[in-house]
Amino acid sequence: MATYCVRRYLNLLKGRASLGWQKRKFADSARSDEASDPTAVVTDLCRGRHFITGEQVEKDSLLAGWHGYGPLGMTLRRNLAEQWWRSMTMSRGQVFGLSTLHQAGTGGRKALKLVDGEALAAILKEKGQSVEQLTAEVERLLRASATLRTELLQGALEQYAHSLSLVNRKLPFGLAEMGVCYQPAAPDSEGTARTGEAMLASLVWFSSPRTAGQWLDFWVRHRLQWWRKFATGPSDFTSSDFQDECGTRGTRLYYSFPWGREPIETLQSLGDRELLEAHQGNGAKLECQDGRKTVIPHVLSLSGNMDRGVLAYLYDSLQQLKKVDSKQRLHLRKVLKLHPSLAPVKVALDMGRGPTLELRQVCEGLLQELLEEDIAVWPGYLETMQTSLEQLHSKYDEMGVLFTILLNDSTMENGLIQLRNRDTAIKEVMHISHVKSFLIKYILAAENV
Amino acid sequence: MATYCVRRYLNLLKGRASLGWQKRKFADSARSDEASDPTAVVTDLCRGRHFITGEQVEKDSLLAGWHGYGPLGMTLRRNLAEQWWRSMTMSRGQVFGLSTLHQAGTGGRKALKLVDGEALAAILKEKGQSVEQLTAEVERLLRASATLRTELLQGALEQYAHSLSLVNRKLPFGLAEMGVCYQPAAPDSEGTARTGEAMLASLVWFSSPRTAGQWLDFWVRHRLQWWRKFATGPSDFTSSDFQDECGTRGTRLYYSFPWGREPIETLQSLGDRELLEAHQGNGAKLECQDGRKTVIPHVLSLSGNMDRGVLAYLYDSLQQLKKVDSKQRLHLRKVLKLHPSLAPVKVALDMGRGPTLELRQVCEGLLQELLEEDIAVWPGYLETMQTSLEQLHSKYDEMGVLFTILLNDSTMENGLIQLRNRDTAIKEVMHISHVKSFLIKYILAAENV
Repeated sequence: MATYCVRRYLNLLKGRASLGWQKRKFADSARSDEASDPTAVVTDLCRGRHFITGEQVEKDSLLAGWHGYGPLGMTLRRNLAEQWWRSMTMSRGQVFGLSTLHQAGTGGRKALKLVDGEALAAILKEKGQSVEQLTAEVERLLRASATLRTELLQGALEQYAHSLSLVNRKLPFGLAEMGVCYQPAAPDSEGTARTGEAMLASLVWFSSPRTAGQWLDFWVRHRLQWWRKFATGPSDFTSSDFQDECGTRGTRLYYSFPWGREPIETLQSLGDRELLEAHQGNGAKLECQDGRKTVIPHVLSLSGNMDRGVLAYLYDSLQQLKKVDSKQRLHLRKVLKLHPSLAPVKVALDMGRGPTLELRQVCEGLLQELLEEDIAVWPGYLETMQTSLEQLHSKYDEMGVLFTILLNDSTMENGLIQLRNRDTAIKEVMHISHVKSFLIKYILAAENV
Repeated sequence: MATYCVRRYLNLLKGRASLGWQKRKFADSARSDEASDPTAVVTDLCRGRHFITGEQVEKDSLLAGWHGYGPLGMTLRRNLAEQWWRSMTMSRGQVFGLSTLHQAGTGGRKALKLVDGEALAAILKEKGQSVEQLTAEVERLLRASATLRTELLQGALEQYAHSLSLVNRKLPFGLAEMGVCYQPAAPDSEGTARTGEAMLASLVWFSSPRTAGQWLDFWVRHRLQWWRKFATGPSDFTSSDFQDECGTRGTRLYYSFPWGREPIETLQSLGDRELLEAHQGNGAKLECQDGRKTVIPHVLSLSGNMDRGVLAYLYDSLQQLKKVDSKQRLHLRKVLKLHPSLAPVKVALDMGRGPTLELRQVCEGLLQELLEEDIAVWPGYLETMQTSLEQLHSKYDEMGVLFTILLNDSTMENGLIQLRNRDTAIKEVMHISHVKSFLIKYILAAENV
C-alpha cells in the first residue's frame, strides 16, 4: 500500500512537472478586454479572493505599500517570510536573528517623525507668542520626536558590537531581521505625501575586507536562486549591478511586471564606513579575527522587500488557460499557480451530494487531522451556498489552492474521496485514510525540489 | 530499539515532571545580594544572554516597550507568537488572519502622528508669516498626517464587511491579527514623552448578541488556559473582571511579577457600537445570520501583549537552585526553565576532548540534520574559547537550552554522545543515530501536553 501511494504521488508530481508548471502566462484569451490588461486581472483577483485589501488596489498603490492583506495574502506573505527566514538563519550557524525598535533614535530632523499630536496641538494653542517663539517650540518638539526607520541596516549595525560575543569575534557572521519599515513618498496631486509601509527582510553580513567581494558574489547568486526557486517563470527574476551617487557598489534584483521591471531586493557592499559611523569611529571595539589577523570587518547589506515579493509571485503565478466546455464554448480558466511552499491554502475541503450531517462530521474530523499536521485547510464545507462543481474549482484555482478534496455519498459507503490537483486539473479517487500522508509527502517533496 | 528509545524518553519526561518543573523560584540564595532583587537577576540575565537589547533594560523601560531583542529573545517572542497564532487560527475553521497598515487613517489630531519632518521644517522656515498663518499651516499638515495605530481592533472592524463573504454571513467568526502597535507614554522628568512599541495579538470575534456573554466566558477560559499552559507557575497568571468609564465590561489577564501584577491581555465585550461607528451606522451592510434570524453581531475584542508575555515567561521560568560542589562550596545555579515549545534553542552542540577536525565535521553533519527537522540548534562547537564543562552547562541553563549534546573521543570510536537535560541536569549516553528521533519525540510530546 505504501509503495502504491508513493508511486501515485510520484505520478502526480510528474504530471505537475509536465503539465502544471508550463508557463502559459497571459495566453491569448477568450475575453480579450480583460486579458488585455494583465495588471487589472491580477488586482481584481487579489481583491475578490481576499489577497489584498485597501481603499485603492492598483499598480501605484501596491508598489507604494498602501495596502493591507486579507486572509490569503497575509498567509502568502507569512509563508514567503518564513521561507526567507529559514533560508537565512537555519541554513548556517553564523546567522543570528534580531528584532529592533521601529523608532531609530531622534536624529534626522528631515526624516519621518513620530510626533505626539496632543503636544503639538498644545504648542499651537498657546496664546500671545511670537512667530520666533512658536517656531522654536515646534522645532524643539520635532527634535525630541523619534524618527521612524526606513530600513533595517542601522539597527543591525548598532547591535554589531554586542553580538561579537556570540561568535567569539570570528568572521564571517550575519545579523538577520525582518520587520515593517516606512517609506516616505512624493506628494500626490493634492499635495499630501502618503507614507508607504513595507515588510523588509534584511541580512547584514560582516566579513573580512579581503573576502567582501567574494561574499557579494555569493549572496547575489544565493538570493537570485532563492527568488527563482518559487517562480513559474524564473527568468522574470533578474539582477543588475549599480553604483550609487556615494560610490557604493551593489546589485539589485528585479521582477519583470507587465509594466516593466521593479526592484525587489538590494545588495550593497558598504565597506566599513557605516559601521565606524554607527560606533563613533571606535575601531578597537569593532575588531574581529580573520584567521590570525585583526581586522575591522566590511559590511554587506541585503535588503529584500517581502510585499513586493508577494506582488511578484502573484503576477508570476497567474496563468490564464483557454478551455472549451462540453457545449463548445470557450472559457478562460484563471489559475494562481503559486509554489506549494507559498500557497496560502494547501487543501480545500468540500462536500458534494450525500447525507449532510454525516458528511459534515467526516469533514470536521479530516480538518482537525490536517490542521494538526500544520496543513492549511480551507473549510469549504461550511459554506452552504449551492454552487456547481465547476464554479467551486475555478474559485479554488483563483485562490491558488493546491488540492480540493470532495466528499460525497460514496465516502460514507466505501471511504473514497475525490482529490483534484490544481495544476493538472486531474481528479483521482483516494481512500480517506491515505489523504493525510499523501499531502504531507507532496508538500515536503515540493519544498525540497 | 524503538521501544527502548521511547521508554528512555518517557523516563526523561517523568524526570522532568518530578524534578524540573517543581517551582523553586527565587529560593533562598547563596549570593544574597543578587537574589534579593529578582528583577535585577532577570534583567542582567536577559542582557547578558542576548534576550533583550536596549540602552536601558530595567523594569519600567521593559514595561513601556522601549527595548529590542537579541537572537534569543527574538526567537522566544517568535515562538510565543507562533503558538498564539496556531491556537487561534489553526484550531477552528472560522478564524481568518488579517494584516492591516500601521497607519490608521488621518483622524484624531491628538493621537500619535506620522509627520514628514521635511515638510514641517519647510513650513517653519517660511519667512514673513504671521502667527495665525504659521499655526494654520502646521495644523493643516497635522490633519493630513497619518495616525499610528495603538491597537488592532479598528483594522478588523473595517475589514468586517469585506470578510462576510468568507463565511457566507454566518456567525460566529473571528478576524485575527498580530503586529506592532504604538503606545503613547506620559512625559518623563525631562519633559520628553517616549513612545513605546508592543507586538499585540488580537482576535476580534463576531457573535450573535444572544451568545456574546457565553463567548466572553469561553474566551476568558481559553486564553487563561493558554497562558498557563507554558508556565512553570500557572497560578501567577490570573484574571479579573473590570468595567471602564464608558461602561464596557471585560476581563483582564495578569501576570504577577515580583513587583506586582501587570496586565498581559484584555478581553472586552463591546456590543455593536464600535462596529456601527466603523461603518457609519450602515446596519444593513453588517447584518448576519444567526440561525434563521438576521442580526447585527456583537463584538468581542481579545488583545494580548506578546512583549509582556515574553517578559512574564522570563520571570516565570527563572529558577535559582542551590548547589554544593565537590569542594563543599555553595553555588547558585540559574536555570531558565522555559517551556519546550517556547525555548528559543532546543539543543546546543558542543565538542569535548578529541580530534578537533573530525569532531567538527561530525558536529556539522548533526547540525544540518537537526536544522532540516526545524530543530533550533546552537552551534557551540564554533566557539573556540576553552571553558570548563561546568561553565558551559551554566551558560546553556541561563539560555534555557533544553538539551546539550557533547561529542568527544568516544564518539569517533563507537558513535556515542552525551546528552544532558536542562531540567533534570541528568546526563545520559546515547548513540548519535538516535538523537534526532529522540529530540523530535521529546519536543512533540511537550507540545501536546
